[in-house]
Parts: sequence; C-alpha cells; structure tokens
Amino acid sequence: MLTLLLKEIRHNPLLWLLVFVPVVFAAEKLASDAPTLLFVLSILAIVPLAALLSHATESVAAKTGDAVGGLLNATLGNLTELVIALAALRAGQYVLVKASIAGAIVANTLFMLGASFLLGGLKHRVQEYSRVGARFQAALLFLATIALLVPSALAEKERAPEAVMQTLSLGLAVLLIVAYGLGMLFSLKTHRDLFGSAEHAEGGESGEAPWPLALALGTLAGVTVLVALVSEVFVESVQEAAEAFGMSPAFVGFIVVALVGGAAEMASAFSGARKNRLDLSVGIALGSASQIALFVAPVLVLLSYVMGPAPMALDFWPGAVSMMLIATLTATLVTNSGRSAWFVGVLLLMVYLIFAMTLYVLPPQVS
Amino acid sequence: MLTLLLKEIRHNPLLWLLVFVPVVFAAEKLASDAPTLLFVLSILAIVPLAALLSHATESVAAKTGDAVGGLLNATLGNLTELVIALAALRAGQYVLVKASIAGAIVANTLFMLGASFLLGGLKHRVQEYSRVGARFQAALLFLATIALLVPSALAEKERAPEAVMQTLSLGLAVLLIVAYGLGMLFSLKTHRDLFGSAEHAEGGESGEAPWPLALALGTLAGVTVLVALVSEVFVESVQEAAEAFGMSPAFVGFIVVALVGGAAEMASAFSGARKNRLDLSVGIALGSASQIALFVAPVLVLLSYVMGPAPMALDFWPGAVSMMLIATLTATLVTNSGRSAWFVGVLLLMVYLIFAMTLYVLPPQVS
Amino acid sequence: MLTLLLKEIRHNPLLWLLVFVPVVFAAEKLASDAPTLLFVLSILAIVPLAALLSHATESVAAKTGDAVGGLLNATLGNLTELVIALAALRAGQYVLVKASIAGAIVANTLFMLGASFLLGGLKHRVQEYSRVGARFQAALLFLATIALLVPSALAEKERAPEAVMQTLSLGLAVLLIVAYGLGMLFSLKTHRDLFGSAEHAEGGESGEAPWPLALALGTLAGVTVLVALVSEVFVESVQEAAEAFGMSPAFVGFIVVALVGGAAEMASAFSGARKNRLDLSVGIALGSASQIALFVAPVLVLLSYVMGPAPMALDFWPGAVSMMLIATLTATLVTNSGRSAWFVGVLLLMVYLIFAMTLYVLPPQVS
Repeated sequence: MLTLLLKEIRHNPLLWLLVFVPVVFAAEKLASDAPTLLFVLSILAIVPLAALLSHATESVAAKTGDAVGGLLNATLGNLTELVIALAALRAGQYVLVKASIAGAIVANTLFMLGASFLLGGLKHRVQEYSRVGARFQAALLFLATIALLVPSALAEKERAPEAVMQTLSLGLAVLLIVAYGLGMLFSLKTHRDLFGSAEHAEGGESGEAPWPLALALGTLAGVTVLVALVSEVFVESVQEAAEAFGMSPAFVGFIVVALVGGAAEMASAFSGARKNRLDLSVGIALGSASQIALFVAPVLVLLSYVMGPAPMALDFWPGAVSMMLIATLTATLVTNSGRSAWFVGVLLLMVYLIFAMTLYVLPPQVS
Repeated sequence: MLTLLLKEIRHNPLLWLLVFVPVVFAAEKLASDAPTLLFVLSILAIVPLAALLSHATESVAAKTGDAVGGLLNATLGNLTELVIALAALRAGQYVLVKASIAGAIVANTLFMLGASFLLGGLKHRVQEYSRVGARFQAALLFLATIALLVPSALAEKERAPEAVMQTLSLGLAVLLIVAYGLGMLFSLKTHRDLFGSAEHAEGGESGEAPWPLALALGTLAGVTVLVALVSEVFVESVQEAAEAFGMSPAFVGFIVVALVGGAAEMASAFSGARKNRLDLSVGIALGSASQIALFVAPVLVLLSYVMGPAPMALDFWPGAVSMMLIATLTATLVTNSGRSAWFVGVLLLMVYLIFAMTLYVLPPQVS
Repeated sequence: MLTLLLKEIRHNPLLWLLVFVPVVFAAEKLASDAPTLLFVLSILAIVPLAALLSHATESVAAKTGDAVGGLLNATLGNLTELVIALAALRAGQYVLVKASIAGAIVANTLFMLGASFLLGGLKHRVQEYSRVGARFQAALLFLATIALLVPSALAEKERAPEAVMQTLSLGLAVLLIVAYGLGMLFSLKTHRDLFGSAEHAEGGESGEAPWPLALALGTLAGVTVLVALVSEVFVESVQEAAEAFGMSPAFVGFIVVALVGGAAEMASAFSGARKNRLDLSVGIALGSASQIALFVAPVLVLLSYVMGPAPMALDFWPGAVSMMLIATLTATLVTNSGRSAWFVGVLLLMVYLIFAMTLYVLPPQVS
C-alpha cells in the first residue's frame, strides 16, 4: 500500500518537495531565530502536502459513492486553506486569517481562472464550457460577497459597536453555511442532471487512479496533522519574514498565502485547461472560491468562539471587500458566455496584477 | 352590486381582515395612548384594503381598454404605498418616507421575486419566463437606482448645501417621471408586441372576474380614503411601537412597512408562480419595483413642495442606496437567463435576509 | 490634390466651421482679455479640425493595409483628445486633464452610444449588431475602469503618500498599454475573424472615398499642429470662461471638453446608426472609450514625466470614478443582448443627463 504512495510521489515532481517537511521541523529546532528561512521552508513544505491532501480527499470521495463523495469533496476540498487559517486563528492573528480568506477568493476567481483560460487558449483557439455550473458557482460567490460586504460597510461607515458586529457575523456565518448546504442539495441532488458535465469532470480531477480507501483515509489524517504543524511554523514566521522581504502584511496574506494554499488545485485546473477540459478548470476555480466564501470563512467564525482568543467578526479591510466584489463581478461577467479565448485569460490576470501591484506598493502601516 | 363585493370578500380569506378597519378607528378613539396596539391593528387593516384597491384598479383597467388600462395599472398599481407615504410626508416624517420607498424596491426585487421563484420551483422543476419584460423592468430600475444614488453620494461625500440637493432632487424627479412615461410609450405602444406574454398575463392578475365599472370606481375612491385614514394612525403609532418591539426605525420603514404595503401584490405574484405563470410573478415584482422608483418616489418629491412642511430631497441613508443597488444588480443578473429553479429563489431570499438581519441588529441611533 | 481637400470641405457642412481657425488666432492677438469669446471661438475651431484629423487618419489606414491600418486607427483615432489633453498637461492643469479623460469615456459610452441607439431606433424598429465586438470593447473598458479605480480609492480612503501614488500610477499605465497592445493582437491578428463585421464597417467609417496618401499624411501633420495651437487658446481661456457662464470646472472638463473632442466621431456614429449599420456606431463609441482609457490616459501619465511640471498620478475625483464605473457597467449590460430599440438609447441618454445635471448644479468649490 505504501508502495502506491511512493509510486505517486515518484511520478509527480510536485511531491518531491515533501523533502522539505522534515527540513522545516529540523530548522525550527535549530534556527528558530531565522524567520525568513522558516517562512520559505514552510511554504515549500505546504505545497506538496496540499497536493497529497487533495488527492486523498478525491480518493475517499470516489470510493464512497456520488452523494457522500460530492459532500466530502465539497467540505474537505479546501482543507489546506482551513488548516492554515486555523493556525492563524489560534495565534489570534485575525488580520492574517481574513486576508487569506479574501485572498483565496480573489486568487481563485482571477488568477486560477485567468491562467486556466490563458494556458488553455494558447493551445486551443476557442474553448467552450458549461454555463450552468459556472453560473451556479458565481451566484453562490455573489451571495457570499454581499454577506461579507455588509459587516465591513457597517464597521467603516457606522462604527457599529463590537457586540453588534459579532452578533451580525454569527448570523451571517450560519446563513452562509445554510446557503452552502442548500446549494449542495440543489447541485448534487434535486437538479443534479443540469450539472452533468462539470460533475463528471470533478470526479477525475487529478486524472490519476484513486487510492484504496485505507491509504486515502490514512493519508488524509496524517497529512492534515503535518499541514497543521507546518502551518504553525508558517504563521509564526510570516510577520517578520514579510518585513524582511519588504512586503506589507496585506500582500503576504492576500497574495502569498492564497497562492501557497491553492497550489495543488491550480496544478489540476491548469492541466485540465491544457487538455481542453475547461469545465474542470472552471469548476475547480469557482467551486473552490465559493467553498471558501460559504464554508471555510463561516466555519472559522464559528470556531473562533471555541479556539480563538476572542470571537472573530466578518469585517474585512474595505479594500479587500472591493477586491472580492470586483473579482466576483468580473468572474460573473466573463463566464456568462460559456466561451473562452486566450485574451479572456489575459484580462482576468491583468485585474489580479492590478490588485497585487496595489498591495505591493502600499506602505505597511496603511493596509 | 354590493353583493358582488360581499361575494368577493367571502371567497378571499385575506379580505376577512377588513373587520380590523372599524376596529382601528374605534381603538384610536378609545386607546389613543397604546401605540403598539394601534400599530398592529393598522397593519392588519391595511392589508385587506390594499387587496381591494388592487382588484378595483385592475377592474377599471380591464374595462377601459388596453392603452388607458395599462396606463391606469401603471399609475395606480402602487396606490397603497403612495397613500401610506403621503401620510408620512404630511407628518414631515421624511426618514420614514424614504425608508419605505427604498424598502419597497428591495422587498419587491428580492423578497417577492425570490419567494415566487421558490414557491414556483418547489412545485415545478424548471420554470421559464419572458426575458424581454424582465430586462425592460430591470433596466428601468437600474436607471432609477443610479438617479437615487447621485444625491445620496453628494450628500455624504461632498456635503453639498441643501439648496443644491433640492434643485438636483427636483431635476431628477422630473427626469424619472419622463423616463417612466417614455417607458410606457415603449412597452404599451411602439414595441407593444415584444412584451406580449407578460402583458397578457397582467390583465388577469388576480385570476378573478373584473368588477362592473361603477363598483370598481366606487371601491377605488372609498378604499383610498380608508387607506389614507388608517395610514395616518399607522404613521402616528409606528415610531413608539418600533421602540416597544425593540426594532430600529430603519427596520420598521424598510422591512415592515414595505411588506405591509406590498402584501396584496405578493399574494398575486405567489399564486402566479404556483400556477407556473412566472411571467406574471416577475412582471408584478419587477414592475412594481420600477413603478415605485420611477413614479411613486418622484411624485412624492413633487408633492412635498405642496403638502410637506419642507421640500423633500432624494438623498437616502448610504446603506439604503447600497441595498437598492445590490437588489437591482442581483435581479438583473438573476433574470438574465429567463429560467428559474427553487435555488434561485433561495439565493434572492438569502440576500433579503442578510439585509433584514443587518437592519435588525443595528442600534437605533445608528440608522 | 488640394482641390480634393476643398471639394471635401464644400460637401461637408461641418467643415465650414474651419473659418473659425484663423478667427481664433486673430482674436487671441486682438482680444486676449476676452476669455469667454476665445473659449467659444476655440470650440468652434476644434470641431472641424477634429473631423479633418479623423478622415486623414482613416485615409492613411486604408492605404497601409489591414494590420498597420488597424494599428494606426487604434492609436491615432483619438488624436484630438490627446492633443487637447497635452495642452492642458503642459499648462499643469491636471484637474482638467483628468476631467476630460473621464468625461470622454462617459460621453462615448453613454451619450454617443445612447444617441446612436435613439437616432437609429427612431428610423428602424429593432436593430441588431455583433455582440462579440461590443463585449470585447466593454471588457477592455471594464479592466481600465478597475485600474483607474484603485489609485482613486487609495488616495481617498488610505491617504497614501504621493510617492506611492506615482509609482502605482506608473505601473498601472504600463499595464494598461500592455493590455491594449494584447487586445489589438487579439482582435486584429489571432482572432481577427471573430470581429469580422465590425472590422469591415470601421474601414469605411466616414462613408467617403479615402484621400491619396500624400494628402492624408500632410493633412494629418498640418491639422495636428493647428489643433495643438487652438487647444492652447482653449485651455488658457476655459477656466475664466466657465466662471462667466456659471459652470463648474468639473462640468466644463467632463461635459464640454469631452463633447467637443468627440464631435467628429459622433457625427460618424450617428450617421452609421441612421443607415442601420449599428455595428459601426457601437464600434466607434465603445472602441473610442476603451482607447481613451487604455491608451490616451496611460500615455498622458508617461508624458507627464517628460512634458508636465510634475508626474501626473491616475487618481480621479471619486465622483468621476463612480460615473466611469456606472457608465461601463451600463454599457456592458446594455450591449449584452446585441439588439437595440429607441428606448435603450433613451435609457443611456438619461443616465448621461443625470450625470450632467449633477455636475451642473454642483457649486464650483465642491468639484
């Protein structure tokens, strides 16, 4: 059984990075006063762990049948992002948690989708994909963005007291999870056939054979623990490392953490686009974004009551809300036609670049 | 003739609430110091009166031929909302007037449309409706939202002097009425055939036989007077009642008044959706919203010069403008496809719930 | 050869205004203390010069073959706007430069497009046009609006230091020009066939025979110099003239300059709409808007380092950004269907009227 795991590692160059997992733990013991080194090492270690987690989740999903499998994929699909955010939550770094949520949404809708369109478009002249799936995910995302917008607007415009913010955030978190649950009921159960193509595609996401259930479950459990441990090193070192690199915390949370956490999914989305299976790419990109907005973010709010030093409200930095709103609107308008060419990808990437550039030049105290 | 009216009342359970009309007037004399009681009674009395008004308007419209009838329906369709707002206008309660305008637009585009989609979708798997009518109304609504957005943005950002605000509001009011008039010319006259299906449906809105003209006109006149009298009780009691219930004035104006004023139309829209006549539901919901934005609101501005203590400007609380903008945009995106299933309704209702929840938790002094 | 030029002038009533060109220069010498007169005369002189420039550019484009011609049309199509803005740039009037950029974008997307739809719709019941071209231009415009939105939001919300604003503006300017270049590569080269109809139409924009190359090049050079000279008179007189007319500087820059600079293109767009060649009108209106946003504006930022008294940042007055955003969104939603009737034009013109009215009533110190 372990040979299967080893075989997978041998064939997937991304997994060679697994060597950095023990290196991180060693470095933490030996060089705990070198945050920049720890930061880089922990990033290099998280990427392959995320890929393993992703493959294990799909394997369990493939074995458990359609309904349970879809549910599993929908809840564990962004396990890496969740575990990283939990490490930051426990450390009380709510700014980092929120930046990484907002950043993951923007990275998925603009960077992952845009790069998929560009990479696919460079090989195939015009690509088509199912509008139904894209519209469904975009609609969920639109709903979530509105929900996230409200507390931020109140916090800024009305200076609402903190107690109000927390009550509201708790209510919105429950509402989002309910919407997410109803969305799954709709897409996996009552109107399943409408989503045919995208559904089918997601089953074979990685394009590899699923693992046996025991291996998959073991990997799932073991790797989650590893990601949690590495995330803790990452969260501890990120602040000082950012300063050393001259990056603002907003840039690190929004851009770096988001790209690291989503690296594994990006690899799948890009390879799908090259193979002219754009339904797959669009499904991963928008599905992952809406999952983070409607499941990961509200779960973090709920968990902050248990695990965090204080309840976390859903108020974001105004710029982050604007970026989420623009990203969602852009994705909605772009996926409306169900067709794509390379320039569509360029447009999405340009919007992402504008955001990245803005966050990069911002002086640290501002963001 | 009166037997026809009585027969109607016997068959429509909503109209049994008419018994509260005399009760309100009695209570006002006997218990004028019990605002909470008066508030509840006046709500219970307005709902059936609104239903009668609505049926009377349609009956007159049905008798007067297509062009005049369409015009009548278009101007008197929101008579209840207009009369309630006029009572608030005369009392100088401009905050309540504006909250009820904004609330009616949001309630129609999100709650009425969403509940129609949900109720229809629970019975019918996928429902289709005319995109032309929906697009037309959504475009009118979009225009109105932009017009309402400008003075609010100026009032907040630029602190424009009051005289400027009034001139601008007067100009915008005239512009909106002109746009509304041209819109009727377009949909009822020059491009009438494009709107075929929705037009036809609206004729039989209530699904009941139209009344004879004399009865209809008499009901129209008599009930309008009754609504006006009850509205006065409502407006006088609303402030104190809201405090007693622990609701902020914004919540009362935006949610309670809007739902009360639109109860009759909602009944028609929901019944249309259950009968798989979604053209009818969408037409009522969006048509009513655009009518309030392009006709009721500007007429109130003009009337404030005659009836109010001071000219009313069109500047709204920033949150109200954002909600109108989001509601309009959501309705535009959602009706773009001309198809619906139950989950679309859930999404719209969720957005409405987010707004209602936010207004509910807001401390009174904030809104 | 000159007879050809004279023949053109005799047949085109717009060109009779050329008589005002010498009048402006004479008036500047004789009545340099009468800014209102100089302002009016310079406007009257710029309009026919713009028409000549436009025809000369097309003639050169027609002679140089498709690829180079498209490139020429794309870079010199808004030469008038560029030259006027350069005169303002050299005079250090950055507020006027930015107002005229924003105003030109809004005037093209709302006024030019709206009037084309209205004029065409009054003659033809329903008109159709290519959605591909409209979507492409709207997407470019959307990207540019986001790019222009970011520095303005930062300047207002975060009070970012000026050095940050300049770095960011420079980066965005380069990004926009790259996007514009890639857009040309896409529409003129790799996916040229998708844009077939619009492309063909643009070749015969003026509906007149192209001039011989020598005449066209000579006119291009000579008229550019004339426009530059007249623009200088215009820029010098505009401030004082505006005060005399009781107009705010925002109104002059946003509405007057934009309409004057675009007069020639408007003539072409309107005549195309009357001839039921709406592809042509939509192409000119949206193409010109996206060209100003993605080419003229960033080029002005770059040139401000060479020609201006100080580097110009891309931060706009918040109201201007909102108007650009609304204009772009409106154009995107409206052109989504590829069909038009007169009322669509009315809606676009109404939005433009709302903006114009707002800017007109604003007290000068506000804007």
